[in-house]
Amino acid sequence: MYRKLIFFSLIVIIAFSFFSYFGFSDGNETPNISEESQMCIECHENYTPGIVEDWRNSRHSKITLNQAFGVDEISRRISIKELNGKNGDIIVACYECHSLNPDSHKDNFEHFGYKINSIVSPVDCSTCHIQEYDEYKDSKKAHALDILRKNKTYSTLVDATLQQPIYSHGKLTNHPASENKKNETCYHCHGTEVEVKGLKTIETEVGDIEVPNLTNYPNQGVGRINPDGSKGSCTSCHPRHSFSIEVARKPETCAQCHLEPDVPAYNVYIESKHGNIYKTKGKNWDYNSVPWKLGVDFTTPTCATCHNSLLVDSQDRVIQQRTHDFGTKLWKRIFGLVYSHNQPINGRTYEIMLENGTQIPTSLDRKEVATNFLISDDEAKARESEMKNLCKNCHSSQWADGYFEKFDKTVKEADDMVEETTKIMFDYWKKNKGADNPFDDYIEKMWVKQWLYYANSVRYASAMSGPDYAAFKNGWYEMNSNLLYIHKLMLNQK
Amino acid sequence: MYRKLIFFSLIVIIAFSFFSYFGFSDGNETPNISEESQMCIECHENYTPGIVEDWRNSRHSKITLNQAFGVDEISRRISIKELNGKNGDIIVACYECHSLNPDSHKDNFEHFGYKINSIVSPVDCSTCHIQEYDEYKDSKKAHALDILRKNKTYSTLVDATLQQPIYSHGKLTNHPASENKKNETCYHCHGTEVEVKGLKTIETEVGDIEVPNLTNYPNQGVGRINPDGSKGSCTSCHPRHSFSIEVARKPETCAQCHLEPDVPAYNVYIESKHGNIYKTKGKNWDYNSVPWKLGVDFTTPTCATCHNSLLVDSQDRVIQQRTHDFGTKLWKRIFGLVYSHNQPINGRTYEIMLENGTQIPTSLDRKEVATNFLISDDEAKARESEMKNLCKNCHSSQWADGYFEKFDKTVKEADDMVEETTKIMFDYWKKNKGADNPFDDYIEKMWVKQWLYYANSVRYASAMSGPDYAAFKNGWYEMNSNLLYIHKLMLNQK
Amino acid sequence: MYRKLIFFSLIVIIAFSFFSYFGFSDGNETPNISEESQMCIECHENYTPGIVEDWRNSRHSKITLNQAFGVDEISRRISIKELNGKNGDIIVACYECHSLNPDSHKDNFEHFGYKINSIVSPVDCSTCHIQEYDEYKDSKKAHALDILRKNKTYSTLVDATLQQPIYSHGKLTNHPASENKKNETCYHCHGTEVEVKGLKTIETEVGDIEVPNLTNYPNQGVGRINPDGSKGSCTSCHPRHSFSIEVARKPETCAQCHLEPDVPAYNVYIESKHGNIYKTKGKNWDYNSVPWKLGVDFTTPTCATCHNSLLVDSQDRVIQQRTHDFGTKLWKRIFGLVYSHNQPINGRTYEIMLENGTQIPTSLDRKEVATNFLISDDEAKARESEMKNLCKNCHSSQWADGYFEKFDKTVKEADDMVEETTKIMFDYWKKNKGADNPFDDYIEKMWVKQWLYYANSVRYASAMSGPDYAAFKNGWYEMNSNLLYIHKLMLNQK
Repeated sequence: MYRKLIFFSLIVIIAFSFFSYFGFSDGNETPNISEESQMCIECHENYTPGIVEDWRNSRHSKITLNQAFGVDEISRRISIKELNGKNGDIIVACYECHSLNPDSHKDNFEHFGYKINSIVSPVDCSTCHIQEYDEYKDSKKAHALDILRKNKTYSTLVDATLQQPIYSHGKLTNHPASENKKNETCYHCHGTEVEVKGLKTIETEVGDIEVPNLTNYPNQGVGRINPDGSKGSCTSCHPRHSFSIEVARKPETCAQCHLEPDVPAYNVYIESKHGNIYKTKGKNWDYNSVPWKLGVDFTTPTCATCHNSLLVDSQDRVIQQRTHDFGTKLWKRIFGLVYSHNQPINGRTYEIMLENGTQIPTSLDRKEVATNFLISDDEAKARESEMKNLCKNCHSSQWADGYFEKFDKTVKEADDMVEETTKIMFDYWKKNKGADNPFDDYIEKMWVKQWLYYANSVRYASAMSGPDYAAFKNGWYEMNSNLLYIHKLMLNQK
Repeated sequence: MYRKLIFFSLIVIIAFSFFSYFGFSDGNETPNISEESQMCIECHENYTPGIVEDWRNSRHSKITLNQAFGVDEISRRISIKELNGKNGDIIVACYECHSLNPDSHKDNFEHFGYKINSIVSPVDCSTCHIQEYDEYKDSKKAHALDILRKNKTYSTLVDATLQQPIYSHGKLTNHPASENKKNETCYHCHGTEVEVKGLKTIETEVGDIEVPNLTNYPNQGVGRINPDGSKGSCTSCHPRHSFSIEVARKPETCAQCHLEPDVPAYNVYIESKHGNIYKTKGKNWDYNSVPWKLGVDFTTPTCATCHNSLLVDSQDRVIQQRTHDFGTKLWKRIFGLVYSHNQPINGRTYEIMLENGTQIPTSLDRKEVATNFLISDDEAKARESEMKNLCKNCHSSQWADGYFEKFDKTVKEADDMVEETTKIMFDYWKKNKGADNPFDDYIEKMWVKQWLYYANSVRYASAMSGPDYAAFKNGWYEMNSNLLYIHKLMLNQK
Repeated sequence: MYRKLIFFSLIVIIAFSFFSYFGFSDGNETPNISEESQMCIECHENYTPGIVEDWRNSRHSKITLNQAFGVDEISRRISIKELNGKNGDIIVACYECHSLNPDSHKDNFEHFGYKINSIVSPVDCSTCHIQEYDEYKDSKKAHALDILRKNKTYSTLVDATLQQPIYSHGKLTNHPASENKKNETCYHCHGTEVEVKGLKTIETEVGDIEVPNLTNYPNQGVGRINPDGSKGSCTSCHPRHSFSIEVARKPETCAQCHLEPDVPAYNVYIESKHGNIYKTKGKNWDYNSVPWKLGVDFTTPTCATCHNSLLVDSQDRVIQQRTHDFGTKLWKRIFGLVYSHNQPINGRTYEIMLENGTQIPTSLDRKEVATNFLISDDEAKARESEMKNLCKNCHSSQWADGYFEKFDKTVKEADDMVEETTKIMFDYWKKNKGADNPFDDYIEKMWVKQWLYYANSVRYASAMSGPDYAAFKNGWYEMNSNLLYIHKLMLNQK
């Protein structure tokens, strides 16, 4: 009898542990897998075991499409409304994703009798996640590569940052940056254009095989241009074959690109009270729950909480809808620019230009703003108000109002400080016959720091409450010192 | 029978999980709540659900005052000795804290039939936590705002750091820093003075309501001056409505203010072996246990371990008493100052002055030290010895002795290096007719970095064993380079 | 009956929790301890309780040598093949380690009737862990102190970085760095030479006792020279008395020394997708499992994964053998040097010299490389290929090939940029009559940053995919700005 008791207790405990570990409990332990995917796994289990295991840990490997549909709508992770002829009885494995839309995939190739795409693109993911794709496809993230390439101002900045100077006879002459340098730096986050240059032969343990010859690869930037022409890379935030929602909801994911000195979002967050609570109590939160329940699943926001997740309160009332076009929740653009301004009306920011054709939203003397390309003040106000209401789920109205008031003042003060610095530059440019390339002289590089690092830091510090980024760490202390330094450099200029 | 077995196993498991999660197990699942607080919750559950849930996760929501008293004295978290007429049968909820001492609270207001304070102050918390309040109230933390405002040296530094220059006709003229800038930077950690300017009307989902109009709010700095005249903000370290001891004991909390470049305490800690062990093994420790048991609840110190927690060893012998006046355990002041010196005798460091009235503890030429305001060498020795004894719980005497010897040498070497730099500044000030404001020229800003960043880093690196902060990261490499730079700037001065 | 059921469920649950917590389940709850160690503990439990508890949490305290041998060879943690006369029935406690090889231990001393060594050295650890010792003993880590001391180039850099200048009559004169400064900075990681200067008396709670007088102690650098003449300190990565494999496998351990600005390995890792996944999902991994199972115990690499751990795939096939000579898996040396080059043939890098006797591997004009001391291109190719194969467990061949191609290009581009900067320095050194000490002028300190910080960052950023370290954070932006600055400084030189 005792043995039986212990035996059953153990069974229950093991089951309990198992279900807790995998985060759901449908009891389906031998999932239906397509014949094609079964073939993939049989080989790749030997040659890329890490990929296979990663997928095994994913939700894709554990439930069929029909089971995914069986979930309550608010908790459902697929956004298509019907099967559209797909087989709902199989799980989502290798072939289900890597064989989609072969005609548009220039990276489709013959692989041991199957037609396979090297790269799974957002369009392929949209087969089940259509809403996410639709939101993402015209966002700033989707256009992140063109935002740099098609904008003369930014492409000049990229070039000046990455130029390879040669020193000879006391003089420096600049040579243009290589494509490799761009891929390793700016395009790493913004995305590369992956093209197919025919096939190439690679040696493998099973002999030589032919694969598409991909250029500018690997890359997983948010604005990657894929061989099927689509833009984006879902793996940026839902990495590799685990397709995790937990990863995307944790700030360390955003931190890969949004970090100091140019975009100190993560750094400020971690220094803030929100970050403090995340760091000290976040280990016990549930990052996989859909919808995400405020005060229950988590007790302080991560980036995803305010910027894109579907949120409910403890009584299951929806507080915020999910979006994958993050920009639509923002009203003011506070980074990457000389001066802050209203958000652009869409993600194609390379379209923004002043009357004289300069591709910047605010003229350097602040006399002109390209308002046609930006949301109206009313729209900005409405978005700000919506964000403030979100804050009020955990903060009093008084707190939230005071907070947003500080933010407005600080953004203005940072802009003003940049303007004074830019006035010095006007004098420098006058002396030096114009600013053909405003980013390549030493003094110009110091000026870029003034807005790209320091003013950004001060604005972010205010937005998310990280005081050192407003003070000593790339904040006002640096802005003031740098202003004096630039002034000195300008005066010493012959 | 099987079903019964499984059923009971499950019950036990669920109970087990539940009690583990909440960290204690008094079995009281329907706690007594006051009628007033019940009313608060009924509304605020709808309007600020995050606050209500945060409180629900707190210990306050789970045990009554009588239960709190029922705990062994050494494990007790309240420090009053008797109920003093309070109702011991209710838990501590909204009204229990937000209605206290209405006469002294200028922020008290009529709110749907109740008299409510916007801000709960340390005096209010002292209703149950009297010892903590008594220790804190004259500490450096409590006086953190006045330490800046009432000290001419520091207020000049604040102004020079935050000034808003205007550029015109080749010249920069300074305009004073706004109150907003101070609130966003220095006062963010040091605290603001929150005053009440009458009432204001705010729009809410339930219509317009009147609330006190608070200035310089929100803020949760350690030296905040509250509408009841008290100083401090317990929420700085025990944030919001969860009142967590776990949060306060984790270094990320201290890190919000004690971080590089000016106070790199957290950064050095994380780079040290202590930080290394905390980062790799700390996830399994018990941060809620009172008293805190060395080697059992945790195996390497966090900030709180050595600076304020009640500690016992595995045999329950007290190793260290708790204190909320952190300065009393320190002997040497190593940051925020040009030169290190003995700790001040109390938290009102703005009282420290040299014979000529200058509000600094050591004259810039190091010929005078304001010893009257500082603890004696004997007291310093005694405190150092007490700290060393704490180290010896985990380190041999040899180790600890060697460690403290290194620290003394390094602090001296850093001070000496700052002195040589300051000698250059004397020559600069001679040339430039005095140092009216010693913080506003470019060269002066570089000199400030020498002590406020680099010497601080070197001293901290020694105190807690983070070698890169003594070497390349704001350490000797920067000190040496900066000294040469300052020398160059002085020579080039016309 | 119900009571019985609950009772047994509880027993099982408690046992389950207990075994999970301690990570193994041999059921041996009263381990055999030697009489000598029992004596140590009886006293030290009172005087250094933290040490005793740390050991209690260790594997050493829980299994006997015989039990350690009883484990399957692939999972075994000791590497000796037989007992060699040791008592296999006792656990490894204080005396088992602190009494070894007394004749070679100059720090051996009489301690309450026992002959004890203060410091347990790698030779002592080799009693059971012989393979690890053999691999480590001629590695770069083991020679880390001599790498600085016995290399004129590096010892000059150390001195120039730590010199203590004196300012007088407008001039700076340098005074050499103290031994203390070296111990607090470079030698902290590289290791100190711990010597015994007779005995000294220390006061303790049990009266005065005599202990060896150790110099340059405490220190736990990887190249520490111990009182028995051996090199290294196992506690660097397996800290103190818990001897943890988990700690050594987590990147925060490597981060203590391999961090920005000079060796930004950890910083780049954390910013990479690998680091991102570690940070977001790593809390659930098993860091104690031997061998370490890819995709099961962990799903993305930490430092230890690729650089030294014994790895198997989910089908238990060995993917990588363990090594404690980390350098043998590397082909290119990318940090700490002016230009990258093939790895040295052994850990004694102070032996590397150019034909003229200069102790650097590449002449500053890149015309000569000390190839005799470096591995051949073929060997480099073979090692690179082995590392690439490791990547292919989780990445396609295409991905891995593209990745390594980028790395090669970037390393070359960084080297080229350093070369252009060095050409400016040649002109500076010509003007200033030679570079006796190439590290002590201000301009020279800026040049050092160019390769020691910025080029290192760019190379690491490429090696491990942390784009900001190639761009704005100590990357190309700084390299380009610094080049212009150095050019300016050279031109302004009188």
